[in-house]
Amino acid sequence: MTTVPEKDRLHAQISFAVEIDKLKRIIRRNLLMDGSRRENDAEHSWYVGMLAMIFAEHAPPGTDIQRVVAMLMVHDLVEIDAGDTFIYDPVAVAAQAEAEQAAADRIFALLPADQAAGLRELWNEFEARRTPEARFARALDRFAPLLANHHTEGGTWPLFKVTAEQVKRNVRLIQEGSPSLGAYALDLVELSVSRGHLSE
Amino acid sequence: MTTVPEKDRLHAQISFAVEIDKLKRIIRRNLLMDGSRRENDAEHSWYVGMLAMIFAEHAPPGTDIQRVVAMLMVHDLVEIDAGDTFIYDPVAVAAQAEAEQAAADRIFALLPADQAAGLRELWNEFEARRTPEARFARALDRFAPLLANHHTEGGTWPLFKVTAEQVKRNVRLIQEGSPSLGAYALDLVELSVSRGHLSE
Repeated sequence: MTTVPEKDRLHAQISFAVEIDKLKRIIRRNLLMDGSRRENDAEHSWYVGMLAMIFAEHAPPGTDIQRVVAMLMVHDLVEIDAGDTFIYDPVAVAAQAEAEQAAADRIFALLPADQAAGLRELWNEFEARRTPEARFARALDRFAPLLANHHTEGGTWPLFKVTAEQVKRNVRLIQEGSPSLGAYALDLVELSVSRGHLSE
Repeated sequence: MTTVPEKDRLHAQISFAVEIDKLKRIIRRNLLMDGSRRENDAEHSWYVGMLAMIFAEHAPPGTDIQRVVAMLMVHDLVEIDAGDTFIYDPVAVAAQAEAEQAAADRIFALLPADQAAGLRELWNEFEARRTPEARFARALDRFAPLLANHHTEGGTWPLFKVTAEQVKRNVRLIQEGSPSLGAYALDLVELSVSRGHLSE
């Protein structure tokens, strides 16, 4: 038998579990690797978590990969309220910050206070990009759509008139988190340009 | 500069990363919590990984939650080849085992051998259900669709003529991994029956 406070905890956890199902309906800009449709935030979060496991050895020595996975699981939850922001739209990116803070205040608070604090801390760390874990997580978050665009003949790059120069600025974030994945990403950009899938 | 063997490793990792994108196109039976569409395996994998983080305290003391998360991230990868099996179809469940072994042989082998062995071990552990980690992971894998069906007025239960007795057998798997979540799941089943969303 659970005591009353334990039941309250469980009910708070259930409310949060029901709420975050909405992440499956937040649609991103990039396509799946077969180009069939745009990706949603939930499957993207799974995918980048898997990338953390696969590319663990490309993180700086000593990086806590399990923390990176946890960070990537929660990194987009704020988009349930704030929506997805296209990284190549600087005006939207600036306006987004405030909306995401408000979203974090509301969504994490559905959990019992101790758990809310733990997940909020993970998200804050991801956003601040000061730890190797956060920088590696951010690198993977940027690497995934680059890989998808490369595998779909440029994917949404031509559609949104993204240039190689813009993508290369983005590659710098990958390099900051993982020099080897950053180098590979730069190769992909050059290859996409040479194939005519990304304009210079 | 990477040496040739390191490049081979990276290329194997990239092949695997490209391959597993297909999990986003494997469609499950259950609906999203808003009933708008059926769920895919990739977003389901994210969701149950999140449940492991949220419901960690409902696992037996000493359970390695980070291993549970990792297990849930990879638990459905074999369905890229073998497809999703409806848990209430016993014939399909039996035929599935062989197909999933073959799928595991092919898909994990895309990775460098040491990584392939590590992920295969995680998947074998999940399937064998002998450790507390595997049993808790399995409990969450069964808890998620029950929660979704409960929140969508029975969801796919009436459509596939699933009875309360069948769902209760399934609840036993939840109880084996987490007595408290199992008890809560049983409450949900009774509630669904009393509301006429699940037939006895």
